Amino acid sequence: MRGTGKAEIFVMLAHPVAHAKSPGIFNEIFEQKGLDSLMVPLSCRPEDFEAFWAGITAAENIRGVIISVPYKVAVYHKCSAAHDRAARVESANSVRRLPDGSWYADNFDGVGFIDALKANGHQIAGRRILQVGAGGAGASLAYCLAEAGADEIRLTDIDTARAGKLAALVGRAFPKCRIQVGEAEPSGMHMAINATPVGMHAGDPLPLDVSRLTPDMTVVDIIMEPAETALLRAAKGIGCRVQPGRPMMDFQVRAMSEFFDIEGKDRGHG
Amino acid sequence: MRGTGKAEIFVMLAHPVAHAKSPGIFNEIFEQKGLDSLMVPLSCRPEDFEAFWAGITAAENIRGVIISVPYKVAVYHKCSAAHDRAARVESANSVRRLPDGSWYADNFDGVGFIDALKANGHQIAGRRILQVGAGGAGASLAYCLAEAGADEIRLTDIDTARAGKLAALVGRAFPKCRIQVGEAEPSGMHMAINATPVGMHAGDPLPLDVSRLTPDMTVVDIIMEPAETALLRAAKGIGCRVQPGRPMMDFQVRAMSEFFDIEGKDRGHG
Repeated sequence: MRGTGKAEIFVMLAHPVAHAKSPGIFNEIFEQKGLDSLMVPLSCRPEDFEAFWAGITAAENIRGVIISVPYKVAVYHKCSAAHDRAARVESANSVRRLPDGSWYADNFDGVGFIDALKANGHQIAGRRILQVGAGGAGASLAYCLAEAGADEIRLTDIDTARAGKLAALVGRAFPKCRIQVGEAEPSGMHMAINATPVGMHAGDPLPLDVSRLTPDMTVVDIIMEPAETALLRAAKGIGCRVQPGRPMMDFQVRAMSEFFDIEGKDRGHG
Repeated sequence: MRGTGKAEIFVMLAHPVAHAKSPGIFNEIFEQKGLDSLMVPLSCRPEDFEAFWAGITAAENIRGVIISVPYKVAVYHKCSAAHDRAARVESANSVRRLPDGSWYADNFDGVGFIDALKANGHQIAGRRILQVGAGGAGASLAYCLAEAGADEIRLTDIDTARAGKLAALVGRAFPKCRIQVGEAEPSGMHMAINATPVGMHAGDPLPLDVSRLTPDMTVVDIIMEPAETALLRAAKGIGCRVQPGRPMMDFQVRAMSEFFDIEGKDRGHG
């Protein structure tokens, strides 16, 4: 049975947290695998974050935390060590407890995205890619696309300065990838990616100029709800291959499960 | 399914927490009733309690906390309001969130004990009772026995000063009950209660002088493991009626479920 006094405790932090999908996904995994573990959705107001995090750290049997909006950057700065994927974007979406009680940060936003693309047969190495959105998730994606061998990235954001800053950082880290700020239109690209929230709500404009899409292009949206955004619908109509947001989440969950060692394989009792 | 982002979150706090039974009991209840709720076992070191509690308070979607050793007194003093049952022993074993975000304390140690006795046909009103143990749980029991109309309580504890202090407090609150410090022997009593941990471990001495038990007496032990303590075994041998600790827990769980309104009946969505 799940949830005894001996249960391994994980927290999913967001504000608000009610819409978060990962608690339900992980608790379902724990149930299916017969693990005595809990993924606990918790929320705190931004002005209470410092007290909240000190309390989470004091709770000695919390083994890991998944972090979502708006706390990825704040939690990253609470960690004593980090994977380069988290350090380069100064953002953590997963942290696990170190033996001294402090936290180790990682970030699987880009990892899940790349793994999902590859699993569905979408090549990244050597490709030219339009990425719309240079915010938190966008930063992780751009680094991982460059790391995966993208030949060229055209980066765009309503905040042009933010796009320029990210392009410079990614270009410095991965000089073989030509990355520059451009317009939200896919001419000459193999792939177009929406890494913004534009499309979550009915009546949202399209995040990029779909009139320039051609049937040989692949169109990717990181939005999970709706499963088929207006962008993906338009791209399908044109004959493009499309990929929705959900597989990115599924592959992130897989990466997080390994990161947290939920089955205890690395601790000798799995 | 249980444990989505919308789940109602309750915490069970103890140090250590692995042995605690209430997380498993409550999560089983949530499962059976199909409630999207979690009872999360958490532990912190005493030197980290202040930070821990500030964090629990900052976690806005935690609706209630069950408290066990060693934090019942510390948590009581964090509350902004309390039921008299908690206030008179300055000890909380359950707290729930008030609309302003602060905590309301209650204590069901004595309630569960009395309810369990009554449910099993053991009368308290008008009875003479030996109670061994004047610690945290013992204090709740003594008040509730006096409140339930016990005619006389003979209170004993290895710490005689502690027993004397509790007897004075209970006597002042319930002047109709004759309560005084005495020996750990049941002569002239209707009921003998062990409210100490003596009997949990193999090789423990008996908590009271069983040679003075007579078949007309009822013997009660608050220890849950082992289910049949050496005291209860001896009492059975003499022909006494006996009551083990588990029903006290079951009736506490019932009282806590109402206190936390786990089915949301008082919130209009049960």
